Amino acid sequence: MTNTDAAPVSTDDLTTALKEVLDGRWSATRDVVRGHIEDESLVPRSGVALDDYRADMLEQMRAMVPLGFPADGFRPEHGGTGDVGAAVTAIETLGYGDLSLMVKAGVQWGLFGGAVENLGTERHHDKYVRGLIDLDVVGCFAMTETGHGSNVQALETTATYDAATGEFVIDSPTPGARKDYIGGAAAHAHYAAVFAQLVTAGPGEEPTSRGVHCFVVPIRDADGADLPGVTTSDCGYKGGLPGVDNGRIVFDEVRIPRGDLLNRYADVAADGTYSSPIESDNRRFFTMLGTLIRGRVTVGAAAGATGRLGLALAVKYALVRRQFSAPGADDELVLLDYRTHQRRLLPLVARAYAFALAQNEVIAELHELQTADPADVDPDAIRKLEVKAAAIKAGHTALASRAISEAREACGGAGYLDENRLSRLRGDIDVFTTFEGDNLILRQLVAKQLLTAYADDVSDLDAVGWIRFVASTVRDVALEKTAARQVVQTLLDDSDEDPENSDLTHPGTQLRLVRNREDHLLRTAANRMRRAQDPDEDAKEVFTATQDHLIKVGDAHIERIVLEIMVDVIGKVSDTKTRTLLKRVRDLFVYSLLEDDLGWFLMHRHVSVERAKAIRRGVNELCGTLRPHAAELVDAFGVPAVALGVPMIRHA
Amino acid sequence: MTNTDAAPVSTDDLTTALKEVLDGRWSATRDVVRGHIEDESLVPRSGVALDDYRADMLEQMRAMVPLGFPADGFRPEHGGTGDVGAAVTAIETLGYGDLSLMVKAGVQWGLFGGAVENLGTERHHDKYVRGLIDLDVVGCFAMTETGHGSNVQALETTATYDAATGEFVIDSPTPGARKDYIGGAAAHAHYAAVFAQLVTAGPGEEPTSRGVHCFVVPIRDADGADLPGVTTSDCGYKGGLPGVDNGRIVFDEVRIPRGDLLNRYADVAADGTYSSPIESDNRRFFTMLGTLIRGRVTVGAAAGATGRLGLALAVKYALVRRQFSAPGADDELVLLDYRTHQRRLLPLVARAYAFALAQNEVIAELHELQTADPADVDPDAIRKLEVKAAAIKAGHTALASRAISEAREACGGAGYLDENRLSRLRGDIDVFTTFEGDNLILRQLVAKQLLTAYADDVSDLDAVGWIRFVASTVRDVALEKTAARQVVQTLLDDSDEDPENSDLTHPGTQLRLVRNREDHLLRTAANRMRRAQDPDEDAKEVFTATQDHLIKVGDAHIERIVLEIMVDVIGKVSDTKTRTLLKRVRDLFVYSLLEDDLGWFLMHRHVSVERAKAIRRGVNELCGTLRPHAAELVDAFGVPAVALGVPMIRHA
Repeated sequence: MTNTDAAPVSTDDLTTALKEVLDGRWSATRDVVRGHIEDESLVPRSGVALDDYRADMLEQMRAMVPLGFPADGFRPEHGGTGDVGAAVTAIETLGYGDLSLMVKAGVQWGLFGGAVENLGTERHHDKYVRGLIDLDVVGCFAMTETGHGSNVQALETTATYDAATGEFVIDSPTPGARKDYIGGAAAHAHYAAVFAQLVTAGPGEEPTSRGVHCFVVPIRDADGADLPGVTTSDCGYKGGLPGVDNGRIVFDEVRIPRGDLLNRYADVAADGTYSSPIESDNRRFFTMLGTLIRGRVTVGAAAGATGRLGLALAVKYALVRRQFSAPGADDELVLLDYRTHQRRLLPLVARAYAFALAQNEVIAELHELQTADPADVDPDAIRKLEVKAAAIKAGHTALASRAISEAREACGGAGYLDENRLSRLRGDIDVFTTFEGDNLILRQLVAKQLLTAYADDVSDLDAVGWIRFVASTVRDVALEKTAARQVVQTLLDDSDEDPENSDLTHPGTQLRLVRNREDHLLRTAANRMRRAQDPDEDAKEVFTATQDHLIKVGDAHIERIVLEIMVDVIGKVSDTKTRTLLKRVRDLFVYSLLEDDLGWFLMHRHVSVERAKAIRRGVNELCGTLRPHAAELVDAFGVPAVALGVPMIRHA
Repeated sequence: MTNTDAAPVSTDDLTTALKEVLDGRWSATRDVVRGHIEDESLVPRSGVALDDYRADMLEQMRAMVPLGFPADGFRPEHGGTGDVGAAVTAIETLGYGDLSLMVKAGVQWGLFGGAVENLGTERHHDKYVRGLIDLDVVGCFAMTETGHGSNVQALETTATYDAATGEFVIDSPTPGARKDYIGGAAAHAHYAAVFAQLVTAGPGEEPTSRGVHCFVVPIRDADGADLPGVTTSDCGYKGGLPGVDNGRIVFDEVRIPRGDLLNRYADVAADGTYSSPIESDNRRFFTMLGTLIRGRVTVGAAAGATGRLGLALAVKYALVRRQFSAPGADDELVLLDYRTHQRRLLPLVARAYAFALAQNEVIAELHELQTADPADVDPDAIRKLEVKAAAIKAGHTALASRAISEAREACGGAGYLDENRLSRLRGDIDVFTTFEGDNLILRQLVAKQLLTAYADDVSDLDAVGWIRFVASTVRDVALEKTAARQVVQTLLDDSDEDPENSDLTHPGTQLRLVRNREDHLLRTAANRMRRAQDPDEDAKEVFTATQDHLIKVGDAHIERIVLEIMVDVIGKVSDTKTRTLLKRVRDLFVYSLLEDDLGWFLMHRHVSVERAKAIRRGVNELCGTLRPHAAELVDAFGVPAVALGVPMIRHA
């Protein structure tokens, strides 16, 4: 790649340079999976019967095993190769192919495998890991129930220890306790990682519920028939993901050996005595959930890939499809020459760049934490990564969903035909905002963690207790005065403290605006909480009134950290032309996020009316600036040719 | 229905009263179709093969014939019964059932039938109308081409008159001229209303293109095989609407008799002489298109019904599904007790009320115009209704799409399963923002008409000419100083001229805010246009810079007319309790539309920062006020039980 200012940079070189930035650390993995998608023509298909589609996806999973990525997700001492970043990146890249495969692979190696890997101990690793890498052990992740999704602590499935036989009895006591929407449960899974309320009694004790724990439960025999006491059923057709066999499981007093409790964080002795290194039921529960973070990271990443694919399809169509003549011209204009069309797509492309870079950082941090010696890992780092992963999952899946909807509409009737793929992506992506943590819940979770400054001892609290905690402990909730990233701090120092008078294209000004918004929201949220201490206040009312505010805090935080990462990454790009272009992409990301939230910025006097008008103009101008590079910007996503080879682009 | 202030009003009475308001003039028609949906279990199904689904829909169309609605769409003198409002309302109500049927019925009786009815003359009415009512003549509407959607004037299909044989030769000269996405073309249609460039030469003349005209062309024989020269093909799977057989048609010099030109607005004599009562090619073209308004009205109306169905499903689920405990409570709260959940759904319910009432008015006006003696109809009234129909189509379909997406997400994983229907509605509704006029185009069309004050002589102009026209003719573009509706004028007179100091719950204030926004946008758009007269200005640049502004004008206009209609209708409701509740619904509609566009209102100083904060609080408070009536509000939609009888509601 050319790297001097003087030398002309070709389109190809620029695309390559951008791709290098986007691909990041696991670029080799990305290229292998891209090649695989191309070789196997891994694109969503229509008109295939559910059973056939599902069987095909299982075959495709088998074809992935020799590529090595399934083994990457597990520690060498458990039978894997221990490259977590490669494992996650490989599944992310399937978002350029078929999300049905991505989800099935994610369930097997990420969720089911992750539960065994992270909640189990040596006996489980020895018993299951090799088999689940090679698909001799096909499993599912049975957490959600018909009656309980986001509120995992309220699950109703029970696992009652029977000291007489040394077994746990797994049971679904109510209709709401039925495991539901479980990928793999309808057909292929022979094992389930079942989350259930553990009930046990030590010698002379009353049976006590110890909260939710995870158990490995065989659910099907070698022929695929339900095992005794297990009743599976099929969720049938969904909005998308036809290749994923989502199903339901009802347990009727199914007995499993004591050893099949995944006992890293808690155990039950033969006599029924319960023990755990973590005393608080709540903290133990959240520690266990925290280890499952990889699924959340993977889902955000794959959604991002699919969003990029959708944008690439729409931009490429907009570069060939003509409609209406320009004033004074003979030819019709291509769609992307219309400002309205630029405004639909280019700010989303800019946003896709920002989130892709942030996602890479989350994957890299996950890799570091999950490949380190557990004894060396700072619990605070884990908690911070959990919040970051929740933030990026919510932001990235929301972006993907919005980008694909916009892309579909931007391609008109052609966008509605399955042959052009966008309608299929739309159906597949739709549930990503819901599973692995509903985005509405995640954004509140992010806000709560910020308000308690990642305090360790709030997980025991109910909603009122939590509000009281915030109210009583946090004197002055605010962003750290000093940015964690050196480059961010330098830019802040380098910019005018009054954003109104400073240059809006200066990254310091941009960072300041976005940080100030989050800071303002955090402080005012804390103030609201403080009111809950007033004896005249109804805590329930405060709780209700605050929910919206928390979601807004979450959103502001998401955009702040994404911008900081983007600034950081761009600062490290050495080629001037590439860096300059990426700065304009950053500008468009910032200007359009300001425009999207202009009511807030004006209402709270963070921008003036004059500046607001400059922001609107700026979005237009930046769209014009990036228009000539639109093809390079989406080519740099590195979407496999087979995924872009749709009739509307080929024959336009 | 009780109708006094003193008497207690039961929930049922309130629901009935609301339903009466929403159902409007053709309530009897609605009830018949509701009963039909219930009797036939007309709900979207999954896992049915395309061919079977399509065949079922054709059978369902046959079952509709005896209900009489197909005949309602045609004048008695042509073989119908002439109740246009009933015909449109019947198809609208199918939006509570299966949109595949709605679209197929709309294509046959609305689009194909409408072309024959409105563009044809006696010979066509005699030849086709009875048959197309009874489905002996099944047709399709072949306007859109692969290369040309929104820009209908650029269609490439040709119809060249051959005076030697007295025939038109229909031909697709380029790949882009292929008719595409045509509902019915893949399988069932035996006739097509084909839009093509008419080329003819009178004695001694050179062949001249006379612009787009419509021809009835047989495309299939009795066995369903393509006729000679006709090649149909199948668009296959789409994002939804599996029961609609969208397809493509290529014509290779297909000959049809001269008489099959639909010749109400233009004719070709045996010798090839072209004649038309309308001299301007452009004006003739737009007059012909204008007669096809019924399709646009029907699509907006049906989308509205489906949006209401989606909201009813989500609200009913939110009233039974529990999640997380309230502070201090034992039971988990139902979803609709969360403010975030109220904010997701209730403003959309309010908006659905507003648009439903506006849609009723459009249907009633369409009915009056299309059942009157054509000689009595004021061309100005037609043009105004065209603009209104475009506005409501764009607004109503956008609302439906947004409401169903929000409803799907608000139902979490359950919302993603086809058995709970929202995912199917999502797929079906998606294309409604595109077909019968892409919303982006329609909003600009609305703005352009407003800027030229519905002038008659602008259809000849290209983009630059049009801008010049606006710039030169319009001294002071603004809303009429006096509102067309008496009630609106009275309320305006009754409210403070300075909206900032007036009561925001006063409808006069609300109207003023919404009118002032449109007025402001119109004036500033006109000013921009005026700049195009400056010789230094690049007209193309002005055109590009203005597009966004025009879309915003369109949106402001849509919300203004919807609010005015809503105020008008509510003013006529006699029962106090019903009227009071509807006023709160109106308030929520207004407060949330202000909130959605707060950046604009603040930036242009139409609301102050203090008022902006009051608006946000007001949305919260109104959600709280309407929460206890949520069930009644959606029950009043009158969605058939079969459409709401989904597992997530039945078994929660």
